[in-house]
Amino acid sequence: MSASESHAAVPPPTPEAARPAPQAPRLAVRRVGIDTYRENVAYLHRDCAIVSAEGFQALSKVEISANNDPTGNGRTVAAVLNVVDDERIVGSDELGLSEQAFAQLGLAEGSQASIAHAEPPASMHALRHKIGGERLARGDYLAIVRDIVQKRYSKIELAAFVVACAQFELDRDEVVHLTEAMASFGRRLDWRERLVVDKHCIGGIPGNRTSMLVVPIVAAHGLLIPKTSSRAITSPAGTADTMEVLTEVDLPFDQMAEIARQLRGCLTWGGQAELSPADDMLIAVERPLSIDSPGQMVASILSKKLAAGSTHLVLDIPLGPSAKVRTSAEAQRLRKLFEYVARHVGITLDVVITDGRQPVGRGIGPILEARDVMQVLENDPRAPPDLRQKALRLAGRVIEFDPDVRGGDGFPIARDILDSGRALQKMNEIIDLQGRRRQPCRLGALTMDVRAAEPGVVVAIDNLQLARVARLAGAPRVRGAGVDVFCRLGDRVETGDILYRIYADYPADLAFASRLANRSSGFSLGDSGAVPKALGEF
Amino acid sequence: MSASESHAAVPPPTPEAARPAPQAPRLAVRRVGIDTYRENVAYLHRDCAIVSAEGFQALSKVEISANNDPTGNGRTVAAVLNVVDDERIVGSDELGLSEQAFAQLGLAEGSQASIAHAEPPASMHALRHKIGGERLARGDYLAIVRDIVQKRYSKIELAAFVVACAQFELDRDEVVHLTEAMASFGRRLDWRERLVVDKHCIGGIPGNRTSMLVVPIVAAHGLLIPKTSSRAITSPAGTADTMEVLTEVDLPFDQMAEIARQLRGCLTWGGQAELSPADDMLIAVERPLSIDSPGQMVASILSKKLAAGSTHLVLDIPLGPSAKVRTSAEAQRLRKLFEYVARHVGITLDVVITDGRQPVGRGIGPILEARDVMQVLENDPRAPPDLRQKALRLAGRVIEFDPDVRGGDGFPIARDILDSGRALQKMNEIIDLQGRRRQPCRLGALTMDVRAAEPGVVVAIDNLQLARVARLAGAPRVRGAGVDVFCRLGDRVETGDILYRIYADYPADLAFASRLANRSSGFSLGDSGAVPKALGEF
Repeated sequence: MSASESHAAVPPPTPEAARPAPQAPRLAVRRVGIDTYRENVAYLHRDCAIVSAEGFQALSKVEISANNDPTGNGRTVAAVLNVVDDERIVGSDELGLSEQAFAQLGLAEGSQASIAHAEPPASMHALRHKIGGERLARGDYLAIVRDIVQKRYSKIELAAFVVACAQFELDRDEVVHLTEAMASFGRRLDWRERLVVDKHCIGGIPGNRTSMLVVPIVAAHGLLIPKTSSRAITSPAGTADTMEVLTEVDLPFDQMAEIARQLRGCLTWGGQAELSPADDMLIAVERPLSIDSPGQMVASILSKKLAAGSTHLVLDIPLGPSAKVRTSAEAQRLRKLFEYVARHVGITLDVVITDGRQPVGRGIGPILEARDVMQVLENDPRAPPDLRQKALRLAGRVIEFDPDVRGGDGFPIARDILDSGRALQKMNEIIDLQGRRRQPCRLGALTMDVRAAEPGVVVAIDNLQLARVARLAGAPRVRGAGVDVFCRLGDRVETGDILYRIYADYPADLAFASRLANRSSGFSLGDSGAVPKALGEF
Repeated sequence: MSASESHAAVPPPTPEAARPAPQAPRLAVRRVGIDTYRENVAYLHRDCAIVSAEGFQALSKVEISANNDPTGNGRTVAAVLNVVDDERIVGSDELGLSEQAFAQLGLAEGSQASIAHAEPPASMHALRHKIGGERLARGDYLAIVRDIVQKRYSKIELAAFVVACAQFELDRDEVVHLTEAMASFGRRLDWRERLVVDKHCIGGIPGNRTSMLVVPIVAAHGLLIPKTSSRAITSPAGTADTMEVLTEVDLPFDQMAEIARQLRGCLTWGGQAELSPADDMLIAVERPLSIDSPGQMVASILSKKLAAGSTHLVLDIPLGPSAKVRTSAEAQRLRKLFEYVARHVGITLDVVITDGRQPVGRGIGPILEARDVMQVLENDPRAPPDLRQKALRLAGRVIEFDPDVRGGDGFPIARDILDSGRALQKMNEIIDLQGRRRQPCRLGALTMDVRAAEPGVVVAIDNLQLARVARLAGAPRVRGAGVDVFCRLGDRVETGDILYRIYADYPADLAFASRLANRSSGFSLGDSGAVPKALGEF
C-alpha cells in the first residue's frame, strides 16, 4: 500500500521544456497613510489588472520585491493584501503600502515594485510536525525562527507554533535549539569584556522594581551591567515604564552602548536594540493567550540575554500562591531547565528562588514604583524595607560574579554602596546621561481607599488582583495611576483601616478599578497563624 | 499557601460609590472603500481626540456600537483598529469602517456610532483550559463557538483553539458538544419532511464528483436532497466549482430552497445559506495549517448537515495510501466517531468506506470534471466507468433510506434511473432552474503531456501530487485548467505512453505545473503483482 509514498520509485516523464515563468507584474509604489503596526498591508485597486489575472483576493499573502528594478534595493517585504474600491486611496496602476511596509521596502514613491503570491514558509513542514506533537531538531527551529523573523508567518501560524510548543512540553535540548535560533537573528552584542552581568526576574510580582537598584549598585562596584528592559505588556509597570518617569529610555542603540561603557551601566528600553526580534513576535501572540510555558519562558529570557552579550546572569524566580510559580517542586523544575539551557548556550547562571507571596515595595504603577526606588536610593526612612533588602541581596549575588569578591561578601559590598550614597550618585549619572525629565510627573488626581471591612491579620495578598486593579486604574498608560499598598502579610488591621489606595487620572478608570476592588480586594484577613511561610531564599 | 486562591474568603472593602463610567465616545461613521474580507477593520485618524484619550493603538481590538443613537439599530461590530495619517481616508472626527464592517453595522454614512475597547471574549477561560489540555464541557463549547461567530476571536485565538483541539484529541462527547454548538449558531433549516437525505465525502480524492450524479438520481427517485456544497479550498475543484461550469450556484437562500422543494434536489454553493458559520471560520484557520483532526472533521461535517436539516446521511470515507485515511484501522476509528456523534445529534448515518487508491473519473479541474459527470448522465460510451459505478452505489445507499425500498434494491433502482435518462432530465431541470450558463466554457488552450519514461504496470497514483499539479495549472481559479488522467491502476504502459495531460490557460501556470510534474509525476510503475488491493467496499 505504500508504493506511492516513496517518490524515489516514480519514473520521470518524458522531458518537455517548461516555459519560463513570466516576470511578476510591476506597479508604482504609493505610500498609504495607514498605520498597521506589526502587520504589513498592501493595497491594490479592484480594477488593477493583476488582481484578477493573478487571482489575488483580500487577505492573500503577497511578497513585494524591489529587486529587479534599476532603482531597486533588493529588498522583499511580506504583506497581507487589502482590495480597494477608492481611487483616492490607491489607483489601478499603483501598489499601495501601509506605513510600516512602505518604510521596510525603502523605495521612493512612484518607484516600480513587483508583487507576487507569497510562497508558503519553508518551515511549514516542521511546524506541522510540531503540531503533530513531534520533537524537532536544531535545523527545524532555525528554519521556523528564520521564517518568523522574516515575517513569513501569519498570526495563525505564530499562534499554532506557540500553542503546539506549550501543549507538548519542549524537551531540554529543544529549548536549547529554540534559544540559540532566537538569539541568532537580530543584533548580537559583543561588549569585548570578560564579564558582562545582568539580573532578571521572570515576573508576576507587582512593584518588584529591583533592577533600578541593582544596576546602580553593581555599576558603582565596577561590573558592566548594560540593562535593557521591556515595557509592561500585561503588568501595571515594566522597568522601562518606571525608569521613564525619571529619564529618557528610548535611546538609539549606539547611545545606549556609549552610556553603558562610560558609566558601567544603563537602564533603557530594549526596543531599539533589536535583540532576539523573534521573541517580541512570539510574546505578542503568547500574551493574549496567557501562555507562559516553561520552555518558551526560558528561550525568551535566555535568547535576549545571549543576544545582549551577557556572560553572567542572576535570575529571580518568585515563589508564592499567586506568583507565576506556585510550588517548590515547580520552582526547582524551572530552575533546572534554566540551568541546563544556560550552560549549553554559555551563560553563567545563578538562580535565586525568592519570596513571591506579596507585592514588593509599596507602589504599583510607574510613578509610585519610581518613588519607592528613589526612597531606597536616598536612604529615606520611609523607604520600603522589603524592596531595599531584596535589591541588596540580588545585587550581592551579582557582585559575587566578580572573581575578586569572596563568597558572602557581595551583600555587605552592595549595602556599603547603597548606604554611602554611591548608588544614588550612579543612578543620577545614568538619569542625566540618558536625559533627565524636567517636567515633574505627578500622581493621579483621583483616589479611592480600599479599607478593611473587619478586624484581622493579613494572611494573603493576591498579586494578580492588585495588578488588575492597578491596570484598570490606568497604569502603565497613565503614569501616575496605580495602587499604593498600606499593609503587608502578617499586619494586624482594624475595621476601616486602609488596605491600599487607588490612584487614577480619569473618572472612568477610577470607576472601573474601584468596581473590581469592591468585588474582591485581593486581601484576605484571618488568624495570625494562617500567614503562609516564605518559601524562597529571601 | 492557597488562602489567596479562594476569593470567597476575601472580605469586601468598605463600599464607596463607584462613579459611573462615562459614555463611550461617538463619531460619524464613514465607509472606507477597502475590502478586508473576513477581517473587520476600523480606521481612526491619528489626530482623533479619542485615539490618545482611550489609549487606542493600531491593531487594538475595538467594538463599534450603534445602540445608543436615535438612528441606531442596536448592532455591535467587532473590528481591528488601523490608525490613519491621511485626511482623505478618514477625518479626525470620523470613524472609518472597511466595507464588510460598514455593511455589518448597517448605518448610513454620517450616522453616529460609539467605539470602545473590546472586552476580552467571555470564553477565554475555557480556551485557556483547552490549551492546557483539559476536557471541556458542553457550556464551554457553546461559549467558545458563540464568541467565534460573533467575531470576538482574533486569528490568534482561532488558531490556538484549532491547534489545542487537534493536539489532545477531543473525546467523543466533546465532539458532540462542539457539533451541537456549531450548528446552533447561524441558520437552522427545517424542511418539514420526515426524510431529508444527503451524501457527503470527507474529501482528498481528485475528480470524485459523485454528488453531481447522486443528487439527480435520488431526486428523480423522489427523496428530498437539497445539496449545498463548498468551493475548493485546497483541492483543484469542489462540487460548487464544477457545477458552476454548467449553471448558477450562488443563489439567495430562498431561491435555493424553492428549487429544492420543486425538483426534490438542488446543487448550489452553501455560502449564502449561513449554515454553521463557525465552521467556515475554523476552516479558514485549519487549512493553512493542514490540520484535519478527526474531532474537527466530524464536527465540521455533521454541524453543517444538522444546520441544513438533513435527517439521513450517506458518508463516503475513501481509503488508500495517498487518501486522507490510509489504514483500515484509522477508517474504522473515524467511522465509529462519526456514528457516535451522528446518533447523539439525531442524524441517521450510513458510513461507506470506499476505494481511495486513485482519482475517480478522468478529469481533475472544474470543466474536466463536469465533462465526466455529463458523460455519465448522458450514458456516453466514453463515460468513466469508475465514476458511474461509485455514484450508482452511493445513490443506491441513499435511496435505501426510503422505507419503501427493500434492502439491496437501491442500486438497481439508481441504475434504472440513470440508464433511462431520468437522471439526465432531472439534472437539466436543476441546471435550468438555477440558471444555465449560456456562454460555453472551454478547456485550457495550453497543454503538456506527461508520459511514461519506461514500460511497466501502474502500481500507484498519488492523489495529492495530481491535485497539486492541477492546482498549479490554475484549477479551480481557471475553470478549464487541470489534469486529464489517461491511465489507471493496473494498466500496462509502454515508454512514451501518455499518463496524463495538463491543461492551462496561462503560460506561467503551465510552466509551474509542468515543472512539478517533471520532478515527480505522481505515477509509480512496477510489476503487476505490486498493485495494491482495494480495501474499501467499492
